[in-house]
Amino acid sequence: MSAHSEKHGALYVVPTPLDFGMDLETPASPGQWLPAETLATACRLTHWITENAKSTRAFLKRVNGIAPLAVPLQEQHITELPRAAHKKGDHAPETAGDAIARALLAPALLGHDVGLVSEAGMPAIADPGSSIVRAAHALGLQVIPLTGPVSLMLALSASGLNGQNFAFVGYVPQEPGERARRLRELEDLALKTGQTQMFIETPYRNTSLLQALLQTLHPHTRLAVCGALTLPQQASRSALVSEWKRDQRLKERLPLDAPCVFLLGR
Amino acid sequence: MSAHSEKHGALYVVPTPLDFGMDLETPASPGQWLPAETLATACRLTHWITENAKSTRAFLKRVNGIAPLAVPLQEQHITELPRAAHKKGDHAPETAGDAIARALLAPALLGHDVGLVSEAGMPAIADPGSSIVRAAHALGLQVIPLTGPVSLMLALSASGLNGQNFAFVGYVPQEPGERARRLRELEDLALKTGQTQMFIETPYRNTSLLQALLQTLHPHTRLAVCGALTLPQQASRSALVSEWKRDQRLKERLPLDAPCVFLLGR
Repeated sequence: MSAHSEKHGALYVVPTPLDFGMDLETPASPGQWLPAETLATACRLTHWITENAKSTRAFLKRVNGIAPLAVPLQEQHITELPRAAHKKGDHAPETAGDAIARALLAPALLGHDVGLVSEAGMPAIADPGSSIVRAAHALGLQVIPLTGPVSLMLALSASGLNGQNFAFVGYVPQEPGERARRLRELEDLALKTGQTQMFIETPYRNTSLLQALLQTLHPHTRLAVCGALTLPQQASRSALVSEWKRDQRLKERLPLDAPCVFLLGR
Repeated sequence: MSAHSEKHGALYVVPTPLDFGMDLETPASPGQWLPAETLATACRLTHWITENAKSTRAFLKRVNGIAPLAVPLQEQHITELPRAAHKKGDHAPETAGDAIARALLAPALLGHDVGLVSEAGMPAIADPGSSIVRAAHALGLQVIPLTGPVSLMLALSASGLNGQNFAFVGYVPQEPGERARRLRELEDLALKTGQTQMFIETPYRNTSLLQALLQTLHPHTRLAVCGALTLPQQASRSALVSEWKRDQRLKERLPLDAPCVFLLGR
């Protein structure tokens, strides 16, 4: 453990817009969803650690459309995360991945500021990257998080559910029996403690998850579904399970084909 | 429950910069931390529901310094949240507060878009506002969350702790015995389930909370403290409890006099 050295670069955690993979006809300028400080840092950095080099090049190209990058795209140093950290859901501490993570941060030890990015949203939140941040702290580097869209928090703020006590638990099981058991477990926890429970699903399973929720949960449990956040088709709906069952309009124009966040509580 | 009506206004959840109450000599422009879409919406709205009318006027004055407000500050309609919702930590459903919340949304039923704001950061997350969002859904209004700084997520991304499974539990008890019990309970949960546990404290108790954490937690538990996020003096530190005890440099320039987020896990 070394103290922060003036000679070392810092690790910036750099959020990106949420429209990755959405194939929008006219994607918004990244400035719509990223503040000046984040854009200025993205322009200035020359070394990147990323979930996906291709999407990072696409991001930097979009940033370059607003303000010129400090060095041209083809001269940027872009390195992908090791596969272990790459796998969503992985946060195994002190594995071989940590040694690799430290190696990826070598440019910071030589004085370069380094940016950590994921495909969309905030790195290391419902996305890989935490092994890099842990390694940065172990190396005594400054870690500076930047502001941008975090779909989980956009959803929570729009849900009407308790934002003073909440948990994000990742994905629920796919197998119907296990899924129902897990949903009941999360509901019990939410109803007993008042802690809002949040989870996500791959978009093509969103409809099946919503059906399972309506079949499994108590009528008086509150359920919110927030989808396509920051995108033109975005919608957030929040109602008691009994209301979801009664009023089909709640499902109208709910973008279940896009990334959605599911929230339940009281 | 009515369907979304084209004639109704929407409820926008509007984040604000995190420097409220920090008495900075030269506060940053809100554009440093708020993206174009958030600023444009703040400029356009004329009706507000807020935790604190005075801080909302100060926010709008800062926004007006970047781009002119649609109507002058003195003609903005700014209404404070009812005291029950105002109290941090409150998310009592279906109380008298809900009737008041619906009344506050009357301008939206008349076609005005309404902005929900808190003193700093994202409304309804570790801050009041969820009763207003719940009422908006009950009235069939569209709820649109906007991007801005969320200290909890900045902290989580900078912590090196698990961001695939995490909980925010608000404040821990002040009484030393109860506090130690609660910290051990949170540590047990984090170590057993891998779920990062996050909590906050009022700044003047941060030092005492950090001491309690170092006295109470196991040496191999990872503890992160992230403070003054987005501000010039910001710092994030993450290490095992044993390292925090051994290496005093971890506490150097850690802004414990500013708002901090505490995180523990494995």
